[in-house]
Amino acid sequence: MKKALGIDIGGTKILYSVLDEEGNILSEIKKIHTPKTAEEIENTLKNIIEQHYDEIDVIGLSSAGAVNLENTMVLSSTPNLPQGYNSIDFSKLSDKKVFVENDANCAVWAEYKSGAAKGFDTVLMVTIGTGIGGGLVSKGRLFRGSKGNALEVGSMKIFADKRQKCTCGRYDCWEAYASGTGLKNCAINGALEFPEFKTSIFKDKNPQSLTTYDITDGVEKNDEFSKKVFENWQYYMFVGLVGLTDILNPDCIVVSGGMCEFVDVNQLEEKINAETVVTNVCVKRAETKNNAGMIGAGLLALNEN
Amino acid sequence: MKKALGIDIGGTKILYSVLDEEGNILSEIKKIHTPKTAEEIENTLKNIIEQHYDEIDVIGLSSAGAVNLENTMVLSSTPNLPQGYNSIDFSKLSDKKVFVENDANCAVWAEYKSGAAKGFDTVLMVTIGTGIGGGLVSKGRLFRGSKGNALEVGSMKIFADKRQKCTCGRYDCWEAYASGTGLKNCAINGALEFPEFKTSIFKDKNPQSLTTYDITDGVEKNDEFSKKVFENWQYYMFVGLVGLTDILNPDCIVVSGGMCEFVDVNQLEEKINAETVVTNVCVKRAETKNNAGMIGAGLLALNEN
Repeated sequence: MKKALGIDIGGTKILYSVLDEEGNILSEIKKIHTPKTAEEIENTLKNIIEQHYDEIDVIGLSSAGAVNLENTMVLSSTPNLPQGYNSIDFSKLSDKKVFVENDANCAVWAEYKSGAAKGFDTVLMVTIGTGIGGGLVSKGRLFRGSKGNALEVGSMKIFADKRQKCTCGRYDCWEAYASGTGLKNCAINGALEFPEFKTSIFKDKNPQSLTTYDITDGVEKNDEFSKKVFENWQYYMFVGLVGLTDILNPDCIVVSGGMCEFVDVNQLEEKINAETVVTNVCVKRAETKNNAGMIGAGLLALNEN
Repeated sequence: MKKALGIDIGGTKILYSVLDEEGNILSEIKKIHTPKTAEEIENTLKNIIEQHYDEIDVIGLSSAGAVNLENTMVLSSTPNLPQGYNSIDFSKLSDKKVFVENDANCAVWAEYKSGAAKGFDTVLMVTIGTGIGGGLVSKGRLFRGSKGNALEVGSMKIFADKRQKCTCGRYDCWEAYASGTGLKNCAINGALEFPEFKTSIFKDKNPQSLTTYDITDGVEKNDEFSKKVFENWQYYMFVGLVGLTDILNPDCIVVSGGMCEFVDVNQLEEKINAETVVTNVCVKRAETKNNAGMIGAGLLALNEN
């Protein structure tokens, strides 16, 4: 069985280990700080590859940002990664094959090959954090779109009347309603909309200062206002997911990201299947968690080999 | 060069001709009435195949309804096709290969191979008639989803507050706003919303009786109310298309169907590219028109051969 070195390059840390074709982790997972310059990142990656050179066949890298169609460079780097990062030709890091892919694509591949979506045909992953990201696998292939930018699901609009400004500057993006930021927006709007605010545990607070934690904690404490806000948020989650189901006909949706623990996947699955015009879908929580990028990158490098 | 018999089975007529691998039509296009029973349809198809048997290598059929993954049967037949239609095993019609595909998938394939989207990588087709349908090709493959039902784009919601009931019984489907039916809904709602209705050429009409023709005709006659209604309709069109662009990252969107002549494709393209978070897209009007199903079915049968 062939082996890959999977490396997840994050804004603050780099995570890596050796994997087999089934996604089993064969070496201790190591974690180091992401260096501050592109040159140092390049040297650090070369060192990591050197350490494991004799054990591996290919190297897979997971990175934020859009990746070129040859999977050798990151085209649009993110504010978390240093200047010059998008000039690195990752294929030059080793004489063994190096394959770089966007972190969302790596994550959906990890879930499809060795996580919650193992055995499914068409897998949509939706990552719910500060914003909402996505990835899609169908019939054994990543869906990348024409230039590798597909599955920017957080940007689809779920209102068409310029109601809620998104942090991106546009209006009514799904992530302005159904992400962590969306939950805060639901609380701010809910304070005006729901009379329950006046009797809620937050009645003396400025609604603008409410956090996602306040609301999820309020739901646990059975606060009526928090429950209404949370119900709205879950409805917005449903609206986006049922649309994506109708468009993509997945047989599995995997939810991941910092907010995914608050999502009632069973209720969502039931509501989506009651309303979708296509065949039924399973909704599951991600399993590979923090290792998703590392595992997915390694497995993709092996798959494309 | 191999040749296909392309057959489009519609609710009222069957259209067919012989095609080559480039989509060139090699025989006169024939049109016959669709028989009223499944058995007669089967016999008619056998006769058509018999007529052209010596000229062709494969047979491609375009049909309404969802098709099984083996492309041999139509699973869900439509009200326009007779009982028993979904029991026909089309692969048994001939000893040559018979390939059946959903009409929307055939249409996008026709545009991709020999129509407006020739040479593009990822092609989204949106068919705007009474409702809205869709099809997608990416990297030389039809995107079908897990069970062949994908691209039910008309069902994605563009509002999340149960504002407009759709003919399907659910709320806020894109097609309740941006289809032909959607334009009528825009007129009905506009009569309440826009004071211009009181001075419009329709002021003495019951808004419920306004047709899509009334509005498009009113726009031509420079009627202020019609122009406002039409502007809303185009905005709803844009909202759906920019979302689909962010999700699918197509490099070409082809609009087709009875309403497509009213769509300002240049304005739509400009607005989508100003707002999308992914790479730019071209918006074009379909070219294969009424022959789309027939051409696409023939070309798909040749491609899958």
